[in-house]
Amino acid sequence: MPDNQTLSQLKRRFERLSRIDDALGILHWDQAVNLPSGSSEARADQLAELSQLSHEILVATEIGSLIENALADASVAGIERTNVELMKRSYVRATALEPDFVARKARVCSLAELAWRSARAENNFAAFKPNLREVLDIARTEAKAYSAKLYLKPYDALLDQFQPGLRESSFIDLFDVLERELPDRVEQAIANNLPFQGQQKAISATEQAEAFKTVMGRVGFDFTKGRLDQSTHPFCGGASGDHRITSRYDEMDVSKGLMGVLHETGHALYEMGLPTEWRGQPVGESLGIVVHESQSLLTEMQLCRSPAFLSYLSGMLASAFGQDPAWETKNLIAQSTHVSRQPIRVDADEVTYPLHVILRYRLERALFDDDLSVDDLPAAWHDMARNMLGIDVATDREGCLQDIHWPEGIFGYFPCYTLGALLAAQLFDKLKEAIVDLNRQIASGDFAEAISWLRSTIHQRGSTLGYDTMVKSSTDNELGPHAFLAHIDRRYIDRIEE
Amino acid sequence: MPDNQTLSQLKRRFERLSRIDDALGILHWDQAVNLPSGSSEARADQLAELSQLSHEILVATEIGSLIENALADASVAGIERTNVELMKRSYVRATALEPDFVARKARVCSLAELAWRSARAENNFAAFKPNLREVLDIARTEAKAYSAKLYLKPYDALLDQFQPGLRESSFIDLFDVLERELPDRVEQAIANNLPFQGQQKAISATEQAEAFKTVMGRVGFDFTKGRLDQSTHPFCGGASGDHRITSRYDEMDVSKGLMGVLHETGHALYEMGLPTEWRGQPVGESLGIVVHESQSLLTEMQLCRSPAFLSYLSGMLASAFGQDPAWETKNLIAQSTHVSRQPIRVDADEVTYPLHVILRYRLERALFDDDLSVDDLPAAWHDMARNMLGIDVATDREGCLQDIHWPEGIFGYFPCYTLGALLAAQLFDKLKEAIVDLNRQIASGDFAEAISWLRSTIHQRGSTLGYDTMVKSSTDNELGPHAFLAHIDRRYIDRIEE
Repeated sequence: MPDNQTLSQLKRRFERLSRIDDALGILHWDQAVNLPSGSSEARADQLAELSQLSHEILVATEIGSLIENALADASVAGIERTNVELMKRSYVRATALEPDFVARKARVCSLAELAWRSARAENNFAAFKPNLREVLDIARTEAKAYSAKLYLKPYDALLDQFQPGLRESSFIDLFDVLERELPDRVEQAIANNLPFQGQQKAISATEQAEAFKTVMGRVGFDFTKGRLDQSTHPFCGGASGDHRITSRYDEMDVSKGLMGVLHETGHALYEMGLPTEWRGQPVGESLGIVVHESQSLLTEMQLCRSPAFLSYLSGMLASAFGQDPAWETKNLIAQSTHVSRQPIRVDADEVTYPLHVILRYRLERALFDDDLSVDDLPAAWHDMARNMLGIDVATDREGCLQDIHWPEGIFGYFPCYTLGALLAAQLFDKLKEAIVDLNRQIASGDFAEAISWLRSTIHQRGSTLGYDTMVKSSTDNELGPHAFLAHIDRRYIDRIEE
Repeated sequence: MPDNQTLSQLKRRFERLSRIDDALGILHWDQAVNLPSGSSEARADQLAELSQLSHEILVATEIGSLIENALADASVAGIERTNVELMKRSYVRATALEPDFVARKARVCSLAELAWRSARAENNFAAFKPNLREVLDIARTEAKAYSAKLYLKPYDALLDQFQPGLRESSFIDLFDVLERELPDRVEQAIANNLPFQGQQKAISATEQAEAFKTVMGRVGFDFTKGRLDQSTHPFCGGASGDHRITSRYDEMDVSKGLMGVLHETGHALYEMGLPTEWRGQPVGESLGIVVHESQSLLTEMQLCRSPAFLSYLSGMLASAFGQDPAWETKNLIAQSTHVSRQPIRVDADEVTYPLHVILRYRLERALFDDDLSVDDLPAAWHDMARNMLGIDVATDREGCLQDIHWPEGIFGYFPCYTLGALLAAQLFDKLKEAIVDLNRQIASGDFAEAISWLRSTIHQRGSTLGYDTMVKSSTDNELGPHAFLAHIDRRYIDRIEE
């Protein structure tokens, strides 16, 4: 059958792309974990070469007609058809931008990131302004190009890069609700904060890593197909079938590193649970950033910051590091649910985090539409932080210079964090329905049933369903604020130790 | 100028090949050092994909005509011309084999390696015989194909893969001399062995690694462009500009791991010293296995097993690990120059090593020409080991099943080890002439002048000279046995502590 041949040619090409992508994943991981200080240029050359090669393979003329032929064939049905549709999505995106523009974008973003690093170090927003104008111009041009090819509104075309299927209209009202509902809860949660104490003695990174590995294993991380290492910024990376997370270590605060590791473990569990029968094909990949973030947040926030798990952790930390009042369950709970108004997003707690995100979303939206000028950004950030978070931002370094996203040309990403948190809360409600015994299991460090439910509900589906369908089919609902707000109320307002 | 364009197109393609090769180097390193046990298949897929991609780029039809056009242009001269000639060499080799044959070779060698692993474990040569027949057939077919394209004798076509320019005729007499001269020296050296004692306490791998890094730094290893890690089999790998060596650690024998590290450091220094202005081009690469081995052996054997360096090491080990009679200079000398008749090549000392190599060369040559049947190999090995080395090989595991080369389809490689040892000895004589103060420098752990001489004499030349020319220009002589035999006499027979 000629159609089968079309399909198998296509699938072979995407398998090749996926393996190049896996090689890039390992090279990126190695760059963060192992690279000698003087080898950055060599590594940049390798990464650029493989990326360019991958792009050339994807935009090769014959791919377009292979895809059209496959889609014209009615016998290409079900998941096979979804797979080809996802191939088309990649192909259309990759061919939407002129090679000259891609090269200009790489140069502009690379210079902007450099400028941002020194501007942040020197708390000098003025020095970064010309670069911010340039990356904004790039983002607008890119959005317009995608928009024309994908029949999406420009900002939706950006969102759709990170979470395919996500549209701004689906979360405008939802963000309004959060912005209205959260500030009072922040105030109440802070009033409800419990006192806690720090560790009594320092614990080395090596000792911590050993203990973290034990916890990761309990949560379901498969060390025959993954690793834990150290890097400046924690992440989950590697390749399909070889999932590598990293952590940083504070010798005087084990729980900080551990919660980071549990967050990355949630990401890794998703990758580890993807359908192996579709490995190397678009339909076998994870569904997007919102869904990915829901898995890391559900693992960290809903499961691992729960009193049930913290009671397990209490015994585990004492046996790993010796007795310390800091390991007492009550202390771990007080520490893990501490809420504060502070200016840095990556240090924010679960209650204030959405407000940090909504602030960024509103500002990048206004910058993108030219409703806000780059000159006025610091003042706007300052006002919004005071109004939404009750924070007086002292310096731009703690304000509009804190994040790497815009300098890297990334617009349309921030909303995914909070949408992921909402999805995590909705999924957790379903998980509790599915496993009545969940609390007892978690309290004994047994995640088998919970992970198995996540596998069949989310992980093993890969990209076989669209985003909206996945949300509805897994939570029996559209994405909304209620499950999340109810979770916040139980944990931080009513302090129900469930 | 159209010619310049031809040349720059060609160079861009070989730069791409070199970067893919660098990515492969890091993936291979990672496989040996970091790979989770269940991720081998994923890694094999990545390696196979990048190798295939690289092969496709190299054999693309237009490369052949670009090369011919460049060579037809008289303005392409000097090193640029040498570079194109080396490109042609790669291209001709890559196109000499039919794709079907390449696939069959990969399959046969992969199965032979698997069969060899279990045959060696079970000491069952009979089980490996069919595989050995198959890899021999592959080697003969390959030799014939290269031979026809490169106008070389079949065995020379194999040698030329590992050391371009090396011909069997250049070392037949030389191996005869060694086979005649060495056995008496082995006997005499054993009679001259000095007693030595082992360490008193165990030293952890972590502590050893720290000390090894200090020594590597003294010898000239640049840790801003390289690393030391742990693996089952020590090697020097990584990428251009990112050179990674590995070691294994015996807690009760520091000097064993250290000498291995110094050997690999010699390889790494060669790679680190290659001409950066030709990075990514064939002419910027190392010259071949003989020259590579000369650099590792010169570093390990001539420089680091010398009494001068061992006296430096004595103080260094005592300050790193505390006093131990094992670290006394006399003890280190006795240990580092101990000669023994034992059956395993990789454990052999400097005096017996060439005999191990010549034995393998004679046997693979006879197998290759069908002068020896696979059935008769164990008996032939046994006889030759007794005659040449005075060893009664008890089992095939300690005889013809010990090496991985033949199972991997590698024929024509063994001679390089010994030719490298001869070249190291000749180079060392020149080095001593060039630096009158050498012994005193080495005794204070100062390698700067020695490495600088090796850089300008060997490393920075890359592949700009052919093999014969390089040997002659660097040692003022053809390759011969005399410098090596004189070195053996001084160190093991006359025991001159130079």
